[in-house]
This record gives sequence, structure tokens and C-alpha cells, in this order.
Amino acid sequence: MPAFEDSDFGVQTPLSPVKSRDSHRFTKVASNGTSFPVGSHGSTISIPGEGNGHNTIEVPATRSSISDTSHLMHNLSLSPSMKDRRGSRNSFGASLPIPRSKRQSRLSSVHYPDGKAQRPGMPPIQPTRDILAAQMQDLSGEKVKAAKDMAFVFDIDGVLVHGDRLIPEGQRVLEILNGDNELGIKIPHIFLTNGSGKPEKPRVEQLSKILHSPISTDQFIQSHTPMRALAEYYKTVLVVGGEGYKCREVAEEYGFQDTVVPNDIVAWDPTIAPYRVFTEGERATSRPRDFSKVNIEAIMVFSDSRDYATDMQIIMDLLRSEDGRFGTVAQDPVSQRIPIYFSQGDMLCPTEHPIPRMSQGTFRIGLEAMYKALTGVDLERVVYGKPELATYKYADEVITSWMEQIHNDERLPSNVYMIGDNPASDIVGGNMYGWNTCLVRTGVYQGEGNDDNNPASFGVFKNVFEAVTTAIKKELGQDFKFGFDETINPVLHGNGTSAIF
Amino acid sequence: MPAFEDSDFGVQTPLSPVKSRDSHRFTKVASNGTSFPVGSHGSTISIPGEGNGHNTIEVPATRSSISDTSHLMHNLSLSPSMKDRRGSRNSFGASLPIPRSKRQSRLSSVHYPDGKAQRPGMPPIQPTRDILAAQMQDLSGEKVKAAKDMAFVFDIDGVLVHGDRLIPEGQRVLEILNGDNELGIKIPHIFLTNGSGKPEKPRVEQLSKILHSPISTDQFIQSHTPMRALAEYYKTVLVVGGEGYKCREVAEEYGFQDTVVPNDIVAWDPTIAPYRVFTEGERATSRPRDFSKVNIEAIMVFSDSRDYATDMQIIMDLLRSEDGRFGTVAQDPVSQRIPIYFSQGDMLCPTEHPIPRMSQGTFRIGLEAMYKALTGVDLERVVYGKPELATYKYADEVITSWMEQIHNDERLPSNVYMIGDNPASDIVGGNMYGWNTCLVRTGVYQGEGNDDNNPASFGVFKNVFEAVTTAIKKELGQDFKFGFDETINPVLHGNGTSAIF
Repeated sequence: MPAFEDSDFGVQTPLSPVKSRDSHRFTKVASNGTSFPVGSHGSTISIPGEGNGHNTIEVPATRSSISDTSHLMHNLSLSPSMKDRRGSRNSFGASLPIPRSKRQSRLSSVHYPDGKAQRPGMPPIQPTRDILAAQMQDLSGEKVKAAKDMAFVFDIDGVLVHGDRLIPEGQRVLEILNGDNELGIKIPHIFLTNGSGKPEKPRVEQLSKILHSPISTDQFIQSHTPMRALAEYYKTVLVVGGEGYKCREVAEEYGFQDTVVPNDIVAWDPTIAPYRVFTEGERATSRPRDFSKVNIEAIMVFSDSRDYATDMQIIMDLLRSEDGRFGTVAQDPVSQRIPIYFSQGDMLCPTEHPIPRMSQGTFRIGLEAMYKALTGVDLERVVYGKPELATYKYADEVITSWMEQIHNDERLPSNVYMIGDNPASDIVGGNMYGWNTCLVRTGVYQGEGNDDNNPASFGVFKNVFEAVTTAIKKELGQDFKFGFDETINPVLHGNGTSAIF
Repeated sequence: MPAFEDSDFGVQTPLSPVKSRDSHRFTKVASNGTSFPVGSHGSTISIPGEGNGHNTIEVPATRSSISDTSHLMHNLSLSPSMKDRRGSRNSFGASLPIPRSKRQSRLSSVHYPDGKAQRPGMPPIQPTRDILAAQMQDLSGEKVKAAKDMAFVFDIDGVLVHGDRLIPEGQRVLEILNGDNELGIKIPHIFLTNGSGKPEKPRVEQLSKILHSPISTDQFIQSHTPMRALAEYYKTVLVVGGEGYKCREVAEEYGFQDTVVPNDIVAWDPTIAPYRVFTEGERATSRPRDFSKVNIEAIMVFSDSRDYATDMQIIMDLLRSEDGRFGTVAQDPVSQRIPIYFSQGDMLCPTEHPIPRMSQGTFRIGLEAMYKALTGVDLERVVYGKPELATYKYADEVITSWMEQIHNDERLPSNVYMIGDNPASDIVGGNMYGWNTCLVRTGVYQGEGNDDNNPASFGVFKNVFEAVTTAIKKELGQDFKFGFDETINPVLHGNGTSAIF
């Protein structure tokens, strides 16, 4: 005799207000009068009485039809709004190492579009102009002081460019900050993106070309740039995500001594990912070895996974293993677990597809849930990237050392302006960090007025030009002129308007 | 000035007992004496004082390093033990339609190994023996009554076979149940597996060959068999999982009029799955059309996804759409959401890899979490397969109609014995349903004695032969003989022991 009681059948607890909208779906009333909602659209399907037309009977589900995912992930992951963040005390935990600045490279690291610099707004290689600017600056000490006490931090996509397409105001803004202003002075600025998957150098070269401005890798922070610091702590790491072996390149460039990628594991033992279609090309380019004899010390997700099934399985095997040894399963899931790092936490990323696609944050949250289901314990993990505090601390380091490069004055300016298009990362992080935040309408944010959850502290602007010029006028005076006037110099009289030879 | 307060830095709340085990990792004490645990292995890394040897500084994480996944998924998914299930009242919700029995096919559906039947223990096509058996049965009415009042339900993998390899006791058991017993009587038995991904017919043919016994599709239930009933409710469905287009075949065989698979979607708009490598072969075999003009009415996950990234993205797009229309995003995530069905909920499945691989249940839980993260609401979904009640109710239907086929007596026997190797599915489900459950040691269960969470009600046995013979002796008497004795019949005297010509 069945052990189920009537109360088991949940008849008294319908899941959702029962309504039927879909003419193509049946709505039936049970012989006993009760009805069971099925699926989630609210239309009802119920047990047909004996001998009615239908060839089915229905059975209450043993399992709730609702996945109880409340408190699924940290509420910051769920909605990283100022309110939530400020309210959430228990959300401050592990520490994130970041590299100190003093980068190795200096001028060598400045990239000019087309290798040479022959455009307006590029003083560094125009000595006569430098002298001029120096004279100008001697005459207006206060403004110069103010100019050296402010800095701009730019999000890239949706602010300066759309993918590979220039946003014209972006080019003009960089000319102004590179010296095309009444003082001919360089106003410090850096670039802060959650992008990933390529080394910094090629990214900066590409950006430089699009913006027609010189950009240094020393001005540039992408999501995994601060993870360079982790090379100091771990020797052998699993590197996940990105196209082909690009992220392995990144990791090696960061100084990781021994990098392993999922392809190496699959080449060693294809049964680990039963559904993976492994090409000869992949096998040939992978670096298999006997991973049952290797301890992997940490997992680094540098960029979006291209193959969730394989990457999730391999990550799960490592997280459940004894100290990162494949083929083992730890008795205690926690004490022998190796750490896992994610370069950023965005749920969605814009692509050419009209609806944004799932990204590293969504991947991570799925993985966390699977891990909890298999082990019964919560996964510890560390997430870098905006709006993560570590990323902003690192930005300070970068601004400071950049100040030394351009003004020989290793100091953090007092007035930092973050300019971004995404309230949930650029703005919330900047606000929390005490920066002036400017929200522009050229990217993801299209709302009227300011964002409700994460209002930009310095306001909302039509584009990056409006934001930057407004900020500069606030710091250097409403009369401040954008554009360097060559004519004041007798030496150049008659050469007309261009300082370019 | 930074908006963070010291308390934000989580200094007072270390994550886990701090210990350092790994000689190759640094353990440092911060200049301020506090230390931040990093990652999850419990070793500590902290902010180096100014000018110490290391080229990094450290920053407390804004995000908790622990993914708070408590109540992540329904506790039944987390640990489907008797205790949890019985305790969980809120776990009984939506209804699951299942087909009524009266299957279409009859004898036509019986599959013999090698097409013909010429082995011991296969009475149906041996008339003289049938007569004999009939005579025998006339002489012992009570035993016959008991034999017709019991039935066996077999899990397959780990009980009768290992993959394609026969478990010898399995073959012998089927001979006995097919009539090689003192009454020459057929004892009703069916097969109940969480397997999936192929139509029933080829599965049964394969199983028949391995077991050297005739098996009918009318005796066979795999995870998605009861989903046949859903064809009555939905016309256009997305079919997910399985190898190539096999699950589309299954769905069409079940009577779904219009089946869509992820390949059809990708062929229509490759940007929907940016990382999917789509081969020419796949494009050629897919059925693209303008899905911005099609309403998909339900999502059916029939088997393991082979490409999590693509399938999760496409399922997510549909779940978030207006009534299953690609290219739309519903304002209210709930009211316009289409239902999603999963054929079973196993977290892991054994494969040739020594450690079981993630399966449909793990995939579902990851998807649920991602959905919650993107929409803020819980996903409603329906799960079939053991230990789901619907699957056991359906088994009753199948046993009853099988009784009619073999004994022309459409009735559900009182004493049903479930024989399985997995406490978490076979046993827990059978116990809840009031069956006698037998746990065998030839599969996943290797424990000493009975399982703690889901004890088998009839006991634990070395193998399926021990279980079946013990059960039969309990119902038909300790003296019951296994093996049909031909010699009692004068007609056959002298022919020796074999009744097979």
C-alpha cells in the first residue's frame, strides 16, 4: 500500500494563481474537482476522470516544481546595488592580492597608433611645443596645481568605443587630456575595463589605433590585470576561459611558472569529459602529462568559458580532489580544497546578438550551485574586476605611478572622476570608493535621469565629452579653454593654426 | 575619501580556521598584524608592510569569498533521503502527466535476442511445455495464486548488466521469471531505469541481446518514457540533450508534432551562442526557420546536454522570453514563462571514467541558479524519473497491463519487489511507494549492511539472484524449486532432461 498520504499530493497548495491563457493548451478539471498547475505558465492540467477522452493520467510531483533558490548566491551577486552593498556587512571576506605599481616597462610601453606619433594633441614628441606649454604653465600655477590634482578613469566599451568602432567624442577627449588645452598640460587618465582574454599589450595597441591616441599599458587595467599578483603565490595553476590558448599566454606573461589548461587534461584523459569533441588540432597543441602526479594549486578563471560542460566538470573534479590532484576525491570537501579565482563577475555581456549573452558571473553562479549540490558545502571563491574593491585599490596604484611618469610626481590626485556606462559596475564601484562618478548614455545605460539603484555622484551626461569638459571646468574654472593656442608664440607666428610640422 | 569603513574589511570575520599547510605558499602577517584568509585552503596571505620583499599588496574582498548557497536547491535535490523526503511537506507540488497503459503494440513488441527464441526458460513458443506447465499449475492453485500476486521491478545498470556487459546472475534470474521454475509459470517483471537518450525499441533490443532473454517494450520504462503523455499538451517543443538528433527521434516517436532542437536555433542565428563551433554537418542536418515567428510551448530536457554553454543559453533565452518567442524578453519573468521538464534528476552518472561524471540533475541545478541570478525569481520546473512519484505510478500501469498480457488478468499484484543498486533513487522511491525494496551490491552501493539514509525494506543482497530467489521463497514457500522438471511428464519420458527440441 502506497506510503503517500493525500496531503502529499499538494492539492491544497497550488503553486500560482491558476489562469489559462493558451488556447492551444488544454485546461481540464479533475474528476475530483481539484486541479494541478503544471509547468510554470499557470494554465492547469489535472487528473481526467475514468474513461474520459484523454490517454493520460496525472500524478502530483514528489519534488516541488519550484527550485528553492532563495539565498542562492550572495545578494551582491544577485543585485550589486549601492543599497545592497552598503547593507551587507557579511559580504567582506577574503583578501585579494594585487600587484604594487612600479611597472617594469616605461616609455617602451607607450603605444602609438601606426607606431609613430604625428597627430594633434600629442605633445610628448614635440619639443618646441613642450617648451611653449612649460612657459604657459609657469604663468598659471594655480590651474596647473589643480590640473595635477585631478584624474580620469575611463570605462572603455560604451564610453570611448563600441567594440572596434570609435565614439568620436572619445577621440577628442583624449586629445584634450593629452595636452590640447589652454595649458598644454597632460591631465592624468587611466582605462579600467572588465574585458579579458588577451594580454594587455595587444589590447592597448588595438585601442590606441581606434582612438588615434597614444596609450600606455601602464594606463590600462583589464579584469585580470590585478591577478598578476597571484603568480607570486601559486606555481601550478589551471587557467580557464578565453579563446584558444590566449589566456595561457596571459598567465605566462603574468609570471605563472606552470600553467595547465582544460585541453591538457582532456588530452591526458578524454574520459574526464565524456561529451567533449576533441579535435586533432587541439590534441596537437595541448600539453598532456600524467596529471595524477601533479598538484594543481589554484584555479584561475581568466575569461568566459567556451565550453561550460568540460570546464565545469574539470573545475569540479579539482575542487573535490585532494589538494588539486586529479583522480582523487577528498574525504573532507573543505580542508583539502584548492582556491578558485574569477577575473570578473558580470552576469551578462553585450555582443552582436541583440540580447546580452551570459558571462563569467553566470557561469560562476551555476558552478557554485552544482558544487553545493554535490558536496553539501558552500564554495569559497574570489572575484576580481569592477565593482570589486581590489580593482579600485589597484587603480590608485596605477594612477599614482602614471602621475610620476607624466609629471614626475608620484602622488594620488584628490579628485578622481570615473566615467562609465554601467551603473552596476562602473558607478557602484566608483561611488563606494569615493570617486566622482559620471554615467554616460552612449552604452548600456539608456534610462531617463540618474540610475535609481546606483546614482552617479557627479551626474549623467550625453557622452564622454560632456562629462570630461564639465569635470575639468569644475576643477580648473568655467573659463578653461579646450585647445592649445600656438599663436601666442612669436617663434611660430605665421605658421597658422597647426603646431604639427 | 574612500567610503569603506574598517568594518567593511572583514578583518574581524576570518572565514575559516587559519592554518598553513602548503610549504610552497607564503604565509605572511600583515604590518597591522591582521591576516586575511585567501581562497579556500585555509592558508593565509595578508597585507605586507611597506617595503617588504613582496611586490604585491592585498585588499579585502568586497564580495564574500563564500558563495552563500544555503537553500540553493530543493533539499530533496540536495539529499534525497527518506528522512528528508518524509519531512518535506512543501515538496509536493505540480502534477506530472503520465500515459495510461494499454500500449499500442502487443506481441509484436516482444524482442528476442537474435530474433528467434530457442533457449531454456522461454516457454511462450513451446506449446508442449505450455501444456505441461498448465497441468502443473492446475495441481497447485495456491502457489499459482501467489505467483500471480507478486511482481519484480528491476533497475538495469548495476543490477542485471554493467553497461554492455552481462551480470551472469541477471540472465539466470530472467530464465526463472520466464518460467524455468517448478510451476513453469511466468512471474511478472518489468524494467525501470533512469537511462535516456534513445527510443525504447533499440534499448530493449540491446538489453534482450545482452540478457539472452525476450523483453518487451511493454515491460520497459526509461526516464523519459512517461513524458510521452506531454505530447498531448504541447505542440511545438524544444528538445534538449542526447547524442546528435536521437532525442528528437524519441520526441517524434512519442507523438510531439513539432520538435525544435538547439541546432535548429543556432543554424537560424549563430550569434545566439557566440562560442558555439557549428560544423557544416550540423548545419546541413538542422532545421532552421524564422524562430522570431514561432512560439515554443515547452522545453523538454530528455537527456544529458552535450553542450552546456549553448543549451543553457538557449533555454535561458526561452525561459526569459514572452511565451517562448525568441528575440523577446518578458517584462514579468513569471506570467509569460513557458514550462520546462527534465527526464530525471540524477546528479552523477557512472561512466568509464573512474569518478562519476555530472549528469542531468547537476545541469538543472546550475541552470536554476543562473536563472535566479538573472531574473531574481525561482524557476519552476518538473522532474521525471526515479525517485519521482510519477515514475512509480506509471510503473503500476505498466505492471498491470503486463499482467494482462502474460496471465490475461489486468490486475496489480499485491507484492511488488524493487531491485536496485542505488539507495538514492531505486530504494528511496520504492520505499516511499510501499514496495519491498532489495539493495544489491553489484552496482554503485558498496556499503556494509544496509544504507543509513535509505534502508532497503527487504534487505541487502550479494546480487540479483539472491534477492529474487529470497523474495520468491518468501511468497511461494521455502521449498519452491527453481528449474522446471520435464521428467514428470510421461509423454516426454526418455527424451532426457531437455524439453527443447
